[in-house]
Amino acid sequence: MRLEMQKPPPPPPPPPPSHHLEEEEEEEEEEEEEMVAEEEMEMASPEFVSCDGAAAGGGGGGGEQQLFVPPLNFAMVDHGVFRSGFPGVDNFGFLHSLRLRSVLCLCPEPYPEANMEFLRANGIRLFQFGIDGAKEPFVNIPEETIREALKVVLDVRNHPVLIHCKRGKHRTGCVVGCLRKLQRWCLSSIFDEYQRFAAAKARISDQRFMELFDISSLKHLSATFSCSKCP
Amino acid sequence: MRLEMQKPPPPPPPPPPSHHLEEEEEEEEEEEEEMVAEEEMEMASPEFVSCDGAAAGGGGGGGEQQLFVPPLNFAMVDHGVFRSGFPGVDNFGFLHSLRLRSVLCLCPEPYPEANMEFLRANGIRLFQFGIDGAKEPFVNIPEETIREALKVVLDVRNHPVLIHCKRGKHRTGCVVGCLRKLQRWCLSSIFDEYQRFAAAKARISDQRFMELFDISSLKHLSATFSCSKCP
Repeated sequence: MRLEMQKPPPPPPPPPPSHHLEEEEEEEEEEEEEMVAEEEMEMASPEFVSCDGAAAGGGGGGGEQQLFVPPLNFAMVDHGVFRSGFPGVDNFGFLHSLRLRSVLCLCPEPYPEANMEFLRANGIRLFQFGIDGAKEPFVNIPEETIREALKVVLDVRNHPVLIHCKRGKHRTGCVVGCLRKLQRWCLSSIFDEYQRFAAAKARISDQRFMELFDISSLKHLSATFSCSKCP
Repeated sequence: MRLEMQKPPPPPPPPPPSHHLEEEEEEEEEEEEEMVAEEEMEMASPEFVSCDGAAAGGGGGGGEQQLFVPPLNFAMVDHGVFRSGFPGVDNFGFLHSLRLRSVLCLCPEPYPEANMEFLRANGIRLFQFGIDGAKEPFVNIPEETIREALKVVLDVRNHPVLIHCKRGKHRTGCVVGCLRKLQRWCLSSIFDEYQRFAAAKARISDQRFMELFDISSLKHLSATFSCSKCP
């Protein structure tokens, strides 16, 4: 018996787009999250999904089949305010369509060069309020940093603004939760929204932070921005 | 040994507000859902939650501590478009703050009198496209009804509009998913958003419906409405 010559195996598929940040956060939770992601992919019938069409930086051009790829955990928070996980190159076409005026990044790592280039090309201002993405016990949510971030979000001159961290769950969830407090949402609704994005990763420490966050110093700003404002 | 006289036990807490609809949907799933709700309540530290302040129909009056109670699964979909589960009396204060021009209800049951009164008092138009909230196999999502509902959602003269069904998961999720198709979102992002609201109740049949839904007859409407439109 002799071994037949075989074609070399096909190269492994390219790695998913990465935003080149150190995996400081939730290393040990990573595997579990990947399993969840796989389950979701199964539901999403990936064989029918065609997301290749969205050109980075391009808005309307191209064929009719061009599709937009919103970043992970993307959602509209209120008029002129969006939230998401870390955007990658695949998401630039979609982000372009939002005509953002600013991006508020809550990660401490240097902003990736590709993202910087996208911001420059589209005249988008970057606000960075670095908060470490530590695991529980997450004792160090810096109240002052969240407060400064909120001031940027509340300033309509920065709208439309995209708030993002790495996964759009914890740091972003805390900023949005504090915003909801200013909008006088009751805590159970704030937590419900937080949990919708954090899902299995919801942290009681984040929720305690939102609960105890003192909005009194920001109240003079909140009147200019509300869910009730509609074009 | 004798039994001491004891105070009678306190009366049971009042039942949660109900929208007086027949529980046609998901009867057997109900118990499981209640268990989930209990878990969530535990996370939400209900002892600190005070939601009593939001007066039905009232917007700005009252004390500083008046809190808003958004309906279950409430979220902003796009400029002038909101989604939620069935609103109850507790939510009217919040809904008032949205200054809705219309409500699009996807349940077939007669609209509750309290809700009708709230709509009348606030000059809000009701569009009702009754779709049965059947369990899986959910073979009867009526494509024409979803299409007519979408036309209402796409017409900016109806904005701000609230789309709701009973839980804001399946019927509402299908309408929003078809809207996202018109907005050229890729399917995996559409399913991701659908699953965020449906959570453990996500239905492959709903996702198949969204995937196969033909948007070609609506494309002429979609240009007037988009995530990129910002005041």
